[in-house]
Amino acid sequence: MLEQFKVSHDDAEFVKDDDLKRTVAGIFEKMGVPPEDALLAADVQVLADLRGVDSHGVSNMLKSYVAGYQEGSINPKPNWKVIRETPAAANVDSDRGLGTIITPKAMDIAIEKAKKVGVGMVTIGNARHLGMASYHAMRALEHDMIGVCMTSCPPSVLPTFGAEPRLGTNPIAIAVPAKNEPPFVFDAATSSVAVNKIRIAGRLGAEIPGGWLAAEDGSPIMEPSQAPENVTLLPLGSDRELGSHKGYGLSCIVDILAGVLTGFGYGAVPGRPNFGHYVAAYSIEAFTDVEPFKVQMDEWSQMMQSTKPAPGHDRVLVAGLPEAEVEAVRRKEGIPLHPEVAEWIRDTCGELSVNCLF
Amino acid sequence: MLEQFKVSHDDAEFVKDDDLKRTVAGIFEKMGVPPEDALLAADVQVLADLRGVDSHGVSNMLKSYVAGYQEGSINPKPNWKVIRETPAAANVDSDRGLGTIITPKAMDIAIEKAKKVGVGMVTIGNARHLGMASYHAMRALEHDMIGVCMTSCPPSVLPTFGAEPRLGTNPIAIAVPAKNEPPFVFDAATSSVAVNKIRIAGRLGAEIPGGWLAAEDGSPIMEPSQAPENVTLLPLGSDRELGSHKGYGLSCIVDILAGVLTGFGYGAVPGRPNFGHYVAAYSIEAFTDVEPFKVQMDEWSQMMQSTKPAPGHDRVLVAGLPEAEVEAVRRKEGIPLHPEVAEWIRDTCGELSVNCLF
Repeated sequence: MLEQFKVSHDDAEFVKDDDLKRTVAGIFEKMGVPPEDALLAADVQVLADLRGVDSHGVSNMLKSYVAGYQEGSINPKPNWKVIRETPAAANVDSDRGLGTIITPKAMDIAIEKAKKVGVGMVTIGNARHLGMASYHAMRALEHDMIGVCMTSCPPSVLPTFGAEPRLGTNPIAIAVPAKNEPPFVFDAATSSVAVNKIRIAGRLGAEIPGGWLAAEDGSPIMEPSQAPENVTLLPLGSDRELGSHKGYGLSCIVDILAGVLTGFGYGAVPGRPNFGHYVAAYSIEAFTDVEPFKVQMDEWSQMMQSTKPAPGHDRVLVAGLPEAEVEAVRRKEGIPLHPEVAEWIRDTCGELSVNCLF
Repeated sequence: MLEQFKVSHDDAEFVKDDDLKRTVAGIFEKMGVPPEDALLAADVQVLADLRGVDSHGVSNMLKSYVAGYQEGSINPKPNWKVIRETPAAANVDSDRGLGTIITPKAMDIAIEKAKKVGVGMVTIGNARHLGMASYHAMRALEHDMIGVCMTSCPPSVLPTFGAEPRLGTNPIAIAVPAKNEPPFVFDAATSSVAVNKIRIAGRLGAEIPGGWLAAEDGSPIMEPSQAPENVTLLPLGSDRELGSHKGYGLSCIVDILAGVLTGFGYGAVPGRPNFGHYVAAYSIEAFTDVEPFKVQMDEWSQMMQSTKPAPGHDRVLVAGLPEAEVEAVRRKEGIPLHPEVAEWIRDTCGELSVNCLF
């Protein structure tokens, strides 16, 4: 049933990642973003596209970022600063800067701390959307560190037994280096399903499976049904019997660590600047020898992949593997853009006098 | 449907927590465990009973710990030591010591580190069962810290699309202090359901809901059925459509942080000492002011609890609230022990010449 939600790329336009990145960076510069920051923001979006995480790539996010800059809700030149700091911890006021730009910088602070004391952990308040959470977690990989990223989002998900959304989709991302295998990269919302899958189903008039959504009174819809207009998501686990209290609890953890702990409020605080973030880096060397760790991560990954598959499946995947496979293809063949998206980018470039490289 | 799995306490014997604790400590001492460690081990088990987490209390765990000491797989006087250390991190070789005894000590190391540098993180290899994971996380609360605990267990859970168990139930526990509300205490396996719920269903001949188990060929059983003899658990999310790749990924994270990172192997390594652990403490003061944080945690918890409930439910819970409510009752009325359990403890005390206080 999942296959039907994939947007067909038969009519897609293929664009080289570097061309897309420099074009997007040009648009960011026209929003008043300094060149180096513009390139960073573009890199975050294009890596999502390269890895097949289209929901967080250029197609899905650029428009809203441009709108945010234009309406003034995102600050193009934020005076972001560390407002509290210890050797292993820091808290950042991001001054309404875009999360795709501030979060990598906060992650770099966490990495520097982890180099010195073994672990670095940074919270980010007064923040805006950070794009694909795993981008920031993956920044730790080249330093032989484990990277973590979480983000507390505005409410769209019900607590178990509840009839009102109190939590965001609140994703958790973790990246772990291996030696020859692709790094383990987990990046998932703590809701049962991503909201864009339901939007796509709605557009296609497709039936959605049970366990994704709640009815208006808060009851989990556990049978296949048409996608409703007003979407309220269920936590991972769908209902109490299947463990939704676990998905709900995990979402709460994200809301606390990336929300309350920042001192800038949690997801459901009315008028809270819309996002709060949390990043961390753990130096592997601080716990055990790096080389044997990476060799064992290879062995662990191969063990998972060599698991005998259940009927109807070719193979067992491990987080980060399918994304690495897509990335290898797209770096060579280019990123498939829907013609409407390519058109919108060209139009936007035209309006802003940006050189569109495709 | 969940209610039917609760063991009736109509015929239970009620024992005061302190009497149970000192009796259990007496049994541990006879296993060769030093008195202070014996009391700590008993405290971990009895707190589980007090909080209604009967699966990890005296009834369910004491017998296996006694067997472990008697057959020599658990070391009563481990020469545990920190084998690597930085200001924020440490790795411990627990020398086959019981996790209920070594993990609190590792958590104390993490807390001391967090006092000094803001964050402390300790991995524990060569380890044994740690009881209720949240016990260790909760140790951080009185220091105005957030506590984390994870444990990598022997395989019983399928990876998504897989037909062979590769991961343990791999729980994640986090404890966060509040001011007047009970602390937020999350403690859950990353599998769809706890294995003991299925065992109880099997004993009662009850039907189990869909989404808990896999058939022998690895296919998720998504309809209600009788509990099979050979139980293979599904990850949280049950099947791919409902998000089992998320539960699977979370379980992998635990296996990496509490397994591979210890340097003593992951859950599926043949012959690995059966468990690996991970604890962490985050000093709230290192990120933001403690008092406003705790006040906001109260506000956050009340916001969750005051969510309008869905039909069929009285109220919305928050992790740690039901456990705190049970604890208040059981501290007053005593811990309900099944007569067979009470009898087994009395018999064991008789055999070991331990003074049974009930």
